[in-house]
Amino acid sequence: MTFYEKTAKAWAKNNSLVCVGLDPDFKKLPECVKGEKNPLFAFNKAIIDATKDYVCAYKPQAAYYAGQDMDEDLKMTMDYISENAPDIPLILDVKRGDIGSTAEMYAKEAFERYHADAVTVNPYMGFDTLKPFLDHADKGVIILCRTSNPNSGDLQNLVADGHMLYEHVAMLVRDRWNYNNNAALVIGATYPEELKKIRTICPELPFLVPGVGAQGGDVQKVIENGANADKTGLIINSSRGIIYASKGEDFAEKAGAAAKELRDLINSYR
Amino acid sequence: MTFYEKTAKAWAKNNSLVCVGLDPDFKKLPECVKGEKNPLFAFNKAIIDATKDYVCAYKPQAAYYAGQDMDEDLKMTMDYISENAPDIPLILDVKRGDIGSTAEMYAKEAFERYHADAVTVNPYMGFDTLKPFLDHADKGVIILCRTSNPNSGDLQNLVADGHMLYEHVAMLVRDRWNYNNNAALVIGATYPEELKKIRTICPELPFLVPGVGAQGGDVQKVIENGANADKTGLIINSSRGIIYASKGEDFAEKAGAAAKELRDLINSYR
Repeated sequence: MTFYEKTAKAWAKNNSLVCVGLDPDFKKLPECVKGEKNPLFAFNKAIIDATKDYVCAYKPQAAYYAGQDMDEDLKMTMDYISENAPDIPLILDVKRGDIGSTAEMYAKEAFERYHADAVTVNPYMGFDTLKPFLDHADKGVIILCRTSNPNSGDLQNLVADGHMLYEHVAMLVRDRWNYNNNAALVIGATYPEELKKIRTICPELPFLVPGVGAQGGDVQKVIENGANADKTGLIINSSRGIIYASKGEDFAEKAGAAAKELRDLINSYR
Repeated sequence: MTFYEKTAKAWAKNNSLVCVGLDPDFKKLPECVKGEKNPLFAFNKAIIDATKDYVCAYKPQAAYYAGQDMDEDLKMTMDYISENAPDIPLILDVKRGDIGSTAEMYAKEAFERYHADAVTVNPYMGFDTLKPFLDHADKGVIILCRTSNPNSGDLQNLVADGHMLYEHVAMLVRDRWNYNNNAALVIGATYPEELKKIRTICPELPFLVPGVGAQGGDVQKVIENGANADKTGLIINSSRGIIYASKGEDFAEKAGAAAKELRDLINSYR
C-alpha cells in the first residue's frame, strides 16, 4: 500500500485529518512517567493508546530523541505504532537534505531502521538530494514548502520569475519531482493565504500542516484554504496542544480528549 | 576558544586546509575492521591516528551512523577526537533545519551529546531556525550556501532582486546572521565561479568546501577563487578520497598519505 493510499484510508476510517506530533521533552513530562526506563516511549505509548481512533497520522520529531540521547525510545515508539495502530501512517519528521550518497543513508534510517511510511525532507539542495527518498515509490516524501515559523519568509518569500521561492518548490513537485506519485508538501497553518496559493498549484497533493495549537494557526482558514475538492488532502499536526493537554496522571486521557476535540473542530469546517 | 580561533590555530599548526570527512559505509570497510564490535569507530580511530598531523578539521557525517544504526560509533568517534586530537575542530555534519523549539533539541544533540565545535545547518526555513545554533557564540554554525551536488541550482540559482538565492544566503550572513561572529558557509568545490562571487560578498568568512576528490572539484580553482587575503579561510573536505585510499590492511597508512598529499597539493597553490 502506498503512502497516499494508507493516508486516504486513515482519513476515512477515523474521519479525521489530525496528526499527533510525538515530540516529548523529558523536562515537560508528567512526573508519573519520568521514572520509567524509557520515559519518552512510556509517555508516547499512553498517548498513542488514547488517540489512535481520532487521528490520521503520527509524526515523531527525531530531534527530541536525538537531542536527549534517547534513540531507543524513538525505535520503540515506531515499532509500537506499527504493531498497535497499523492503519495509521507513520511520518518520521527529520527534514533531511544532503548529497545523493548521504541521502541514501538517511533513507535507510527512515525506511529500514525506523520503517516510517513517510519522511520530511528539505528541498534547498535540489532534485538529486530528494531522489533517494522519492525513488521509494511506496513511501511518502513530504517536502518543506512554506514553513510555519516566524522567519520562514527570509528565503521562502524571495520572488524569482514572478513566483516566490515556496511556489517554485510547489511547481517543481507538480512538474518534475512527483514522478512516483508519492510527494507531499509542508505548509504552515500560520500562513493561510500561502496555503490557498499552493492548493491552486497542486489541487490534489496531500499537505502536512503544522502550526495549529501552540503556534497559533487558525483551523477554519486551514480547511477553507487548504482542503482539496473532497475535503481531505490535509494532515493537520498538533503536538504540544495534544501531548501536554494535562501534566497530571490523566495526561493520556486528556490527550485523547484533545485529539478528539481537534478532530471535531476540523470536521465542523469540512 | 571560539570556532574561528580553533580553526585558525589548526590551519597554522598543521599548515593545512584539509578536512577529513568521516563517512564510513560498513560495506566499504576493509575486512580487517569489519569484525570489530564497533567497526565504524575502529575504522575512524585508525584514520584519525594516521591523519591528525595533516588536517585542520574532522567532519563526521551523521547519516552514516544513523542510517546504519551505529550512533554509538559516532559518539565514540567524537570522544576520541576530543581526547586525542584536541586541537582539531570537530564539525558534525547534520544539515539540520527546524522550528525554534526543535532546533534547540538539535543544538543539544550537536553541542551537548556530541560536543561538536561546529554544526552544519540548512537556511531554507529562515533566521529563527538558525538562531538556537548561532546563539552558541563559542560554536561554529556552517550554513549551506551553494552546495556541491549536480542539481544544487534547482533552487539555489533562482534569481530574486538581481541575486541568486545562494547569494542572498551569503548576504544574510554578512548583514544579519553573523551577530556572534561564529557563522561559516558551505560552498561546493564543484562550483568555482560561485565560490569566487561568495568570497567577494564575505571576504573573511570561513568556507567549508566539500567536493574535491570523488565529486571532481578542482583544487587549484578552489584556492584561487576561495582563499581569503591571507590564503586561509577554507576548510576543504575530502571523504572518500582519503578514507578509502586503500581497502587493505594498510588503509590507515594510505589515508595518512592521501591526507598529506592533498594538504601539499593545496599548499602548492597558496
